[in-house]
Amino acid sequence: MPLFSSPEDLTRILRDLPSRAPIYAIRAGHRQRDLVKPPGSLGRLEDIAQFLASWSNDGTPRAHVVRGLIFAGTHGVTAQGISPYPSSVTMQMVETYRRGGAAINVLARLEKIDLDIVPLQLEHPTGDISLGPAMTMDETLDALNAGADAVKVPTDLLILGEMGIGNTTIAAALAARAFDGDGNEWAGAGTGLDTDGIRRKAAVINRALDLHRAAPKTAFAALQRLGGREQAALAGAIVKARLESIPVVLDGFVVGATLATLYSEVPDIITHCLAGHLSDEQAHVKLLRRMRLSPLLDLGMRLGEGSGAALATNVIRAAVHLHMEMATFSEAGVTNRDDA
Amino acid sequence: MPLFSSPEDLTRILRDLPSRAPIYAIRAGHRQRDLVKPPGSLGRLEDIAQFLASWSNDGTPRAHVVRGLIFAGTHGVTAQGISPYPSSVTMQMVETYRRGGAAINVLARLEKIDLDIVPLQLEHPTGDISLGPAMTMDETLDALNAGADAVKVPTDLLILGEMGIGNTTIAAALAARAFDGDGNEWAGAGTGLDTDGIRRKAAVINRALDLHRAAPKTAFAALQRLGGREQAALAGAIVKARLESIPVVLDGFVVGATLATLYSEVPDIITHCLAGHLSDEQAHVKLLRRMRLSPLLDLGMRLGEGSGAALATNVIRAAVHLHMEMATFSEAGVTNRDDA
Repeated sequence: MPLFSSPEDLTRILRDLPSRAPIYAIRAGHRQRDLVKPPGSLGRLEDIAQFLASWSNDGTPRAHVVRGLIFAGTHGVTAQGISPYPSSVTMQMVETYRRGGAAINVLARLEKIDLDIVPLQLEHPTGDISLGPAMTMDETLDALNAGADAVKVPTDLLILGEMGIGNTTIAAALAARAFDGDGNEWAGAGTGLDTDGIRRKAAVINRALDLHRAAPKTAFAALQRLGGREQAALAGAIVKARLESIPVVLDGFVVGATLATLYSEVPDIITHCLAGHLSDEQAHVKLLRRMRLSPLLDLGMRLGEGSGAALATNVIRAAVHLHMEMATFSEAGVTNRDDA
Repeated sequence: MPLFSSPEDLTRILRDLPSRAPIYAIRAGHRQRDLVKPPGSLGRLEDIAQFLASWSNDGTPRAHVVRGLIFAGTHGVTAQGISPYPSSVTMQMVETYRRGGAAINVLARLEKIDLDIVPLQLEHPTGDISLGPAMTMDETLDALNAGADAVKVPTDLLILGEMGIGNTTIAAALAARAFDGDGNEWAGAGTGLDTDGIRRKAAVINRALDLHRAAPKTAFAALQRLGGREQAALAGAIVKARLESIPVVLDGFVVGATLATLYSEVPDIITHCLAGHLSDEQAHVKLLRRMRLSPLLDLGMRLGEGSGAALATNVIRAAVHLHMEMATFSEAGVTNRDDA
């Protein structure tokens, strides 16, 4: 039985999301204050330990089994000349992922991430969003289910990434739809457009937004009209991870815009998500701010394919190891400030 | 024969620093543009690969042998009530490092850093800088040499950290001396002072700056008058690493202020240094900006003991692995933008 059998299923699941266990976050906070360091001196690493504890089923933060899902899709909107690379590169890159030669393969080996590449009907590009809907209802449901089905249990931490020539145009359209902006506000350089190219991309996005303005204000409708297969799959994976209490690490602008689409229907969907990094794609900073997500890394990366999220894994692992392995003041025999 | 036999030796070495090999950086940049990704899309990771290549002896960036040096010292200025922790905590923490229970031990294990803890005459605190010089000339030379001698060859990457209750006061004094400010500008919360405490700390720093204002404007004089043993040792290690072409990763405010002391004599000393992270200690951002160093991480950490630099190791290792292991466009059979 697929998780999503009708468009209403997404809305229904979003309105009844499981929440985390605050008691585990509180207990993890107590332990943090006992560890042999000034209180708060590990900054966000302390927050991460509490965050992971709150999504565990026993209060123990874990980042041992880390899986990565990279969804790939092809986009009809590439016909509008909104990328410096031809759409065929999507298929070639999927082949490169399979051979292990891409950035994400290198990072997955380094960070011990179990990587799954999920190509989504690459030989059937979605419809051009500036001329019509990206997908049919069934295609959208299939992609949502493909994303949900790709989430394996047990997983301590799920890295989400994507590949799809043209998909920063898709992402900008989704972000503009979620946060009521336009193409000029949300279009960026993507893989390397110049100023003229960005202007052209913004115009394409504006045509798409106008065309689909009357569609229902649901996440499903946004994904079907303005999205793509990898965006719908990412949405399915984010939702399924939540149902399984698996914390998610978001990669850059495209993954963030997909989350924004869900967020615009139910803001609580961000609660199990960490922003892995701040992309150099210009609108990403605004996108994260709108959802009050603070990125773990800011290294000027803008590659996609899960690379920023994969690199953030080490920060999250460090938070877990520090939480579990540091001595307490009393174990170490160190004078705490209150005893001084 | 020690590296530093007289105060003039430091000045002499600083004025004749070896430089890196620009040809290796250029070649590494060419390879980056061949790798299967949009040019520049790995952001700072590309810069790091070029930086490491330029300090290698064969053009190959390496981060295999990573060593960490944590220097510890005790400070007479703690008598002025400028820390919420008693000076005895320095010795207790050194014991904790030896037993493996501190944050830096956990991070060193995770990041595969070969860690050396170097306590410097902890039973003999330096003089109170608000009442006289911190050290004699010989004590300063001994600490400089202890730092230089702790640098082992071969090392691909050197992590520098410190521990010493009271040493953010020392660091603020050194920063103020290097960049012509005062205590109000450079004093921060350290391990957790409140507003009154910071005001008291700033006043102590101002007394120290006034007292030593007429001293020679050299890095040596600054370290001797306003520094501490771990600051002099850090300076010795930074200089020795440069002589051995070993790139250095700086931890937070205290290490940065030590570098600033050298920088104020010869700015080129920063060329082999990476700023591991931005500390939550408030003046660190200003300190790095003055030296045009951009931190790799910004996670609100303010623990010292090399923790931020240790965590940055993974970013640097990722840069090396990506540079060495990614396929090129032609190897992967992927269409590049110029071929499209």
